Order: sequence, then structure tokens, then C-alpha cells
Amino acid sequence: MTQAMQRQEAVSIRKNEAFAAVAAQLEPRLIQRECTPKQVVRMIRNEQQIHGWQAEAVQHAQDLPGISFGKGEEVIVDFGEHLVGALAIRIVPVGSPPDAPLHLQITLGEMPVEMAEPFSEYNGWLSSSWLQEERIHLDVLPAALKLERRYSFRYLKLKVLDTSPKYKVSFADISCTAVTSADRSALSATLTSADAELQAIDEVSVKTLEECMQEVFEDGPKRDRRLWLGDLRLQALANYETFSGNGLVKRCLYLFAAYPDERGRITANLFMKPQVIADDTYLYDYSLFFVSVLHDYFLATGDRNTLEELWPSAYRQIELGLERLDERGIVADDESWWSFIDWHPNLNKQAPSQAILIYNLKRALHLAALLGDERKATLERTIGELTQAAAEHLWDAQSGCFISGRDRQVSYASQIWMVLAEVPEPEQAKALMLRLLEDKSAIPMSTPYMVHHFIEALIQVGERETAIREIKKYWGQMIKDGADTFWELYDPNDKSFSPYGSHLINSYCHAWSCTPAYLIRKYQL
Amino acid sequence: MTQAMQRQEAVSIRKNEAFAAVAAQLEPRLIQRECTPKQVVRMIRNEQQIHGWQAEAVQHAQDLPGISFGKGEEVIVDFGEHLVGALAIRIVPVGSPPDAPLHLQITLGEMPVEMAEPFSEYNGWLSSSWLQEERIHLDVLPAALKLERRYSFRYLKLKVLDTSPKYKVSFADISCTAVTSADRSALSATLTSADAELQAIDEVSVKTLEECMQEVFEDGPKRDRRLWLGDLRLQALANYETFSGNGLVKRCLYLFAAYPDERGRITANLFMKPQVIADDTYLYDYSLFFVSVLHDYFLATGDRNTLEELWPSAYRQIELGLERLDERGIVADDESWWSFIDWHPNLNKQAPSQAILIYNLKRALHLAALLGDERKATLERTIGELTQAAAEHLWDAQSGCFISGRDRQVSYASQIWMVLAEVPEPEQAKALMLRLLEDKSAIPMSTPYMVHHFIEALIQVGERETAIREIKKYWGQMIKDGADTFWELYDPNDKSFSPYGSHLINSYCHAWSCTPAYLIRKYQL
Repeated sequence: MTQAMQRQEAVSIRKNEAFAAVAAQLEPRLIQRECTPKQVVRMIRNEQQIHGWQAEAVQHAQDLPGISFGKGEEVIVDFGEHLVGALAIRIVPVGSPPDAPLHLQITLGEMPVEMAEPFSEYNGWLSSSWLQEERIHLDVLPAALKLERRYSFRYLKLKVLDTSPKYKVSFADISCTAVTSADRSALSATLTSADAELQAIDEVSVKTLEECMQEVFEDGPKRDRRLWLGDLRLQALANYETFSGNGLVKRCLYLFAAYPDERGRITANLFMKPQVIADDTYLYDYSLFFVSVLHDYFLATGDRNTLEELWPSAYRQIELGLERLDERGIVADDESWWSFIDWHPNLNKQAPSQAILIYNLKRALHLAALLGDERKATLERTIGELTQAAAEHLWDAQSGCFISGRDRQVSYASQIWMVLAEVPEPEQAKALMLRLLEDKSAIPMSTPYMVHHFIEALIQVGERETAIREIKKYWGQMIKDGADTFWELYDPNDKSFSPYGSHLINSYCHAWSCTPAYLIRKYQL
Repeated sequence: MTQAMQRQEAVSIRKNEAFAAVAAQLEPRLIQRECTPKQVVRMIRNEQQIHGWQAEAVQHAQDLPGISFGKGEEVIVDFGEHLVGALAIRIVPVGSPPDAPLHLQITLGEMPVEMAEPFSEYNGWLSSSWLQEERIHLDVLPAALKLERRYSFRYLKLKVLDTSPKYKVSFADISCTAVTSADRSALSATLTSADAELQAIDEVSVKTLEECMQEVFEDGPKRDRRLWLGDLRLQALANYETFSGNGLVKRCLYLFAAYPDERGRITANLFMKPQVIADDTYLYDYSLFFVSVLHDYFLATGDRNTLEELWPSAYRQIELGLERLDERGIVADDESWWSFIDWHPNLNKQAPSQAILIYNLKRALHLAALLGDERKATLERTIGELTQAAAEHLWDAQSGCFISGRDRQVSYASQIWMVLAEVPEPEQAKALMLRLLEDKSAIPMSTPYMVHHFIEALIQVGERETAIREIKKYWGQMIKDGADTFWELYDPNDKSFSPYGSHLINSYCHAWSCTPAYLIRKYQL
């Protein structure tokens, strides 16, 4: 997910100190790894490549200390892999003693386009402050420059804005202390697929997840570097099949449960610094997904203590979700709410939200049964009523599709979530998914997050081969287009798509795109 | 002085460890003072003002924490006086929790023009890295930002380059820890003048000197922040009449003496960091002035031990200076050398350099006599020969002026330095200075450094009233034009003059401009 564009109402947070303490105790130790650049590269125009740019090796990185750079000169290095971490550069003057400060511009990018296109031309509607570019004055040389911030990058551009006519500089050492809380030594080797393309997709998925596993599960290490509930759900699923960093999932569950609002509602995301802060963004679907994350966590770990402690928080999300039902038993649609679902600008959220409510009700029911909660019966009845209401009011028999909103919109999202919520019968669900594959008029998917649910729905209706084909068509093509971690946004038909007005601000290592590792391993594709 | 535009030959330094140790022991303790902004101001166009800009108070600085700033918004504060020091700003977010970093631009300026005209348009030929502007990303707010660099400024501009639509920022606390090694409590109150204008000029001179007294006597705290021998000479003179920081003069003398080249030649300037480094710039006049600084220091302090230790270094500069003499006994003029004298681009350096050689020979003679050095006789004879040669080859009887170079150039610098060196007889010198006052065709003076010598020459020939008038015309007018410290460069007839191609890069607190305090106090003007 990414930052909200809209301001929610003022809310008052009721911190649960006990939960916060559990979360604090689970703060992971970050694993550090020293990395150095592999190549000096230049970016060349290639219209066949993503965003029209391609990195071309110019020389070995070890030759770099022998080159000096004067005013206006720059160099780009390629670390050979995506990294999240701190940057250190040892800068040495060449020529007379430096008689003016060095003014250095440091640009970091996950993708060639971030090296090739000037950030000064950025005009998107997310904050330009996410663009990873620093300007630094060094009064004393030689200098061992250690940048304080954490960056997410593969490429690094150093541009000398100014020195003086009397000296140049060389970059004697460049290194990155890469960090992650994902433990590669614990990485499960249960990938059974012999398919080389699926193996490659799995590998990039694992790397993507690894980069996003920090003090919490972050959505993207470049942007927003934050714990989002919807992303957490998918990361946790991928994690159970790979790094098994289950303590980190538990930590994130306790964090969300520790900062509800005065009505018990769980925020869409948390800030970790300067202290844990619940964002004032609340998303209908994300709050409900707390139930799913807890459910999946218990299935993966059998940690009954956590389940019992957090079950009231989960159940509360169901109660609040049900408050939005109209007299027909349908999630009310108006201008005041925000359910995320997907980034498509015209997507109506009513039907998929109804489905997500049912989806989480079913997981709540499962947990209630496990816990012997007497509200099991209520949940069961409610599931029946909502499913019936969906069939009655959101199903269009003529088109054979679920419709959403006053304008009876047909979207991928609505069909997929109704299938995942098992609203249609299995045979009907399979037919619906097959029909959807042919439907050119439905509002399409616009993020890997939505495509993940599409694949999961295909698998659920038994279309394993189609699922594999669609994984390859999407994540496989992303690799062909240059991904070494999976991107926040990808539309094979519009490769520069950004919901933010510029592909420069897109995150190119994003949690919600890491799920092929889960899909391939879990379902043994 | 400022940085050299040309590269000198490679030289090898013969460090004198004993001298370096003396200098190191004399490193002063910096006196710190906490300062806060006085006013929020805006810069308004006023063609009557220097560079066309004037600061206008908008509100009290204490109102600032109540104002919040979003993307593209900025504020300028005025600290009410020139400061040299470190900046700290406490920044508080206003609105939702910050969901993107803050990108902040911080611009510091000694003059309104530095706040009003964008540095991006700077196109001068000194390094733009001297322009005091930082761009900083803050990932976590609130933040107690402490900038590591030392700045020289009165005005501070804070511009929010970006936040996000969800929050703004306010500047809760702004402060500067001002530093100097000048001790105000030791400031001599011997100013006897009852003339209010001279009192004001003295006060600004003292402030200028104070700001330039740091770990060494710096030429300018904004640019170049370096120990230059020619500037040191004038700072030391002003210091003896004011702060009496004589240990700092001693330290600087030992520093210069500690880093001669293999022939014993003393550099024009020293860098202090990362360790003491002799610049590879050698100026004919500056090396010779080591004699004068030692001479003046001994007269002010009576420190015979220092005189004895450093006398060989001083004498060596005389020997090296004499090596440039041609067969006529005149300092040879060619393309290979650099004698500073003044910044005027067309100024020929031969005659003033001849005079400066004689000037320093006379001070060396005085020291030799004090020390009983047997080379006294040689010095005496040499002075006679060089004076005779100057009269014979550099005096143009027809115009009644000293001429310089192949093109027989007449300049202020030549006449002034010949008078200061007492080459003409007193009556002839007086007539020469009076004639110079009327001369419109002579190459004029272009820095306060040269104007200082003009005033000193006027006093020397007994023209005290003219000297006072000229001080008021120059430094008095500088105050009327807005100086609260005296500027590196000032031409009352061309107020935006810069030898560097832009008035943005000029230093507006410069050591060589602080001498009215010396002139007024020493000569009881």
C-alpha cells in the first residue's frame, strides 16, 4: 500500500500497553552485510526496455578510485543487486589542497530510470521527498562520508556539483551496509517446481520479501517504509513458506492491536518513529484483514496464546465492519468511506468489500470454533445472510457477473473477491473465473496486489495451469523487463503506469508483489 | 585575501616540528554564545539599497512557532547581527503523522541579496560550493536538527521543498551557537574619538575582527575561512589596539614558519584541516610580509623569544625576495610570478612590489639592529640600493609619479606603497599623495585592503583630516549601505563590484576590511 491521499477524521487512540510491550520485546535484530559496487555503468536509451533506459557496463568498479571527477562530472555504479541499507563513501581530493568545499549530489535508485531522468522534472502527486537524492557540502577532504539515512537502491550516481579549479575528487571506497531481519540461513528450500521460469520468479519474490523485512514488515523500503495491514497479510503468507520469521508477524499483529481508536478500530498502517504512531487513515478492507492475518498466523504457528490474546481485537473488526451494512445486508457505498481494494481510479469498492467482509467472517468463524467462542452461531448466521444478500443484490444473472455500486460496475476485483469469499458455488465460481479471463470490458486489475488475488482465485477454482500461465505472464514478464525485486506497480500493457503521476516515484521493491513465492510453494505449482 | 585562481609549481614542504608544536599549544578556546532570531523579515526591492534589496520586518521571531509551512512555503529570519557558528532548528509536524520525509532547504546569508536572489542563478568563477545552502531530508519528525557545518550569516531562510498533503511543519526553536576566539571582556576601550561616525565605524570594525578570530585569524568566516599572511598582517594590527589576542598572532606566526618549502619560502596561506597544510600558492608580497608581522608583533608585545626563534624565517623571506631583482636592482616583472597587491585586473605589480620589498627590508633592518645581527649592514646597503634604483627607474619626473611595468603604468598602489616604504622624501611624499587625490587616470584601488594602505599613507604624510574624510567616505558609506560587518569588496562607485563575477559570492565580513579600528585608535583620529 502507499500513503493515503485523503485526511481522515480526528481519532483518539487507546493504547494497549501490554500489547505494545509484547511487540517491543519482539523487535528483531537486523542482519548486516557489507556490499560494494560491481560495475561502473552508464544509462543508455533503449525503447525496448522499461521506461526506455538500460544500464550498460563501462568498467569494473575496482577501477573507480583511479578516476578523478571535476565540476559537473558524474559517475554511476551498479551494486549488482537490490540493497536496503546505509551508504559510505571515502572521498579523496586530487590536485592542490581543496580551497573550497566539495558540493556533491548523491542519487540512489532502484531502477535505471532513476539514474537517467532528472528528479528536478518530477511532477507527480506523491511527495518529491521520497526521491532519493542528497546534496552534501564537505568542508574537509579527504572525508569518510557516512550518510545517516537508509536507502533502497541498486544504482548510485555521484555528481560533483562543484569543487574549485584547483582540485578534483576521486571515490576511493564505496560501500553499503545492507540490512534485513530476514534470515537467509532459515530459508526453506521447499520449492519443488522444476520449471526454471517459476524458480526465477520464486527467487525474485524471496529477495523482494527479504528487502521488505526490517524492524517490521515494510510495504516498500524506498517508499513508504511503513507497516500496512493489507501488505502484512501477503508478506506473512510468503514468509511462512520461506523465511519463517514468525516472530516478526507476531510483533506486527501485537503492534496493530496495541493502537486501536476509541471504538477499537484498527488503523490501516503504523509509523514506527519517533515512536509507534497509528496513522489517521482507516481502510474498510484493511481493518477487516486483521482477522485474516491472525487466522493465517495461527494456522502457520499453532500459537494459541497469541490467538487468545488478540481474538477480541479481531472480533471487534468484524463488529465494526458489520456496522456498514444497509437494511438489505449490503455494505453501504457513499462518498464518506475508503476501502482500498486496488488502485484503479474508477473502481467501485462495494461488492469487493462485501466479499472481503464475508471472507473475514469465515476466518473469524473458524477461529471462534477453535476457541469455543459462543458467538460462533451468530457468525455463522451472519455469513449466511450476507452471502444471500450478495447473491440477491450484487449478482447480475443476465451478465453472469457480480456488480458493484449504483452504476452496477463489473470489475475483476468484484469477481475475484466473491470467488475468494466462496460466495458462488464451486462450479459457478470456476465458470465465473473462466468468463472473467475473456472479459475485456470489466474494470481491470492495476496492481500486483490485485493480481495476487486473481491467481489465488484461479487456484481455488482448480485452474492451476491457468494460474501458472498468468504468474509467468505477469511476474515472469516483470523479470524480462528488468526486475530483480518485484515492483509495486506493473501493467504489462502500460509499462510506465503509475497511480502517482510519475514512474520515478514508484517503489520497485514492494511487499505486496512478493507473493509468487507463496503461491508457487504453497500450492506446489 | 581569497583563493588563488592559478596553480603554482609543485613544492615540497619542510615541516618544522618544533614550530608546529608551539602553534598547536596556542590553539585558542572558542567562546560560545547562544543567539536567537530577532525578527521574521521579507526582502523587498529597493534600488537605493546595496544590490537593490532591503530587509523589512514582518513580525516578531517569537511568533514563528505558531506558523506552519507547507510545500513551497518559506520564511526568512534576521538574527539582528552577523554571526559565525552552528545552527540548530527544532522542527515540529503539524497535521497528520508525517507520511513522507520533510525535504528542507536552508539558506544562510550575510546580506539581504543572499536571501533574495536564487543561488541556482550563480554563475561566478569562484566555486558555487561557498554559497551557504543545504538541502536536507528528515525521515523522522519532530526533529532536533543540528547542522554540522559552521556558517557565517545574519539571515536564515527556511524553505519547505516538500512534505506531503497530510502535514506541514513549524519551526519551534531556531538558534545559533556563535563562536569566536576574540575575548570581548579584554576589549580595549582606548577609543578617544568623540566623532559619532568614527565611533560607529570603529564598532563595525571591531565586530568584523571578532568574527574573523577563530582557531586562527581567518580572512573571512564565510569564504575562504583560511589563514592568509597578508590578511593576518592587518588583523594583527587591529588586534593589538582592540582584543589584544596576542597569543593568536603568535600562533599564526609559528604556523607560517612551521611549513616553509624546501627553499624556506613561506606560503601565502595555510589550511587548518584535516591537518595544517601549506597551500601551493606563493605570493611575492605576502611572503615578504612575514617580516612585517613579526616586526609589528614584537613592537606590540616585546616577546623577544618569539622574535629570536622566528627571525631566521623572516630573514629568509628577504633573501628570497631579493632573488627577483634584475641587474638594475628592480623587481623583475614577467608572466611567471604573482604578487597580490590588489584585485584590480589591470594592475601592474612591479613598482608596488619593489616598494613592499623596501618596506620589509626596513623592518628587517630594525629587527637586525635589535638582535645585533651582523647582517644589519648588508640590509642597510641593500635598502639604499633599492631605493636609489626605484628613484632612477620607477620615478617619472615628468608626471611626478611612480610608474610600473613595461607600459609605465601609473596606479594608486604604486604611489601608496612607495610612500609607505618611504622611498620619496617626506615633502615629496606629501605632494605625491595630494596629487594622487586629484588623479583620475591612475589605476584605482579595488579593495578595502588597498584603501587601508591609502589611509595609512595619508596619515604618514600628515594628512590626518584627509584620512578621516576618506575613512568616512569609504567605511562610513559602507555602513550607510547596510554593513554591520565590513565587506571584502566595496567600490562606492560600483556597489555590486565583485572580482569573482557575482556579488553573491563576495564575503561580507572580511578581515582585511577591519582596519579602521586600528587606524582610529592607533592614530587617535
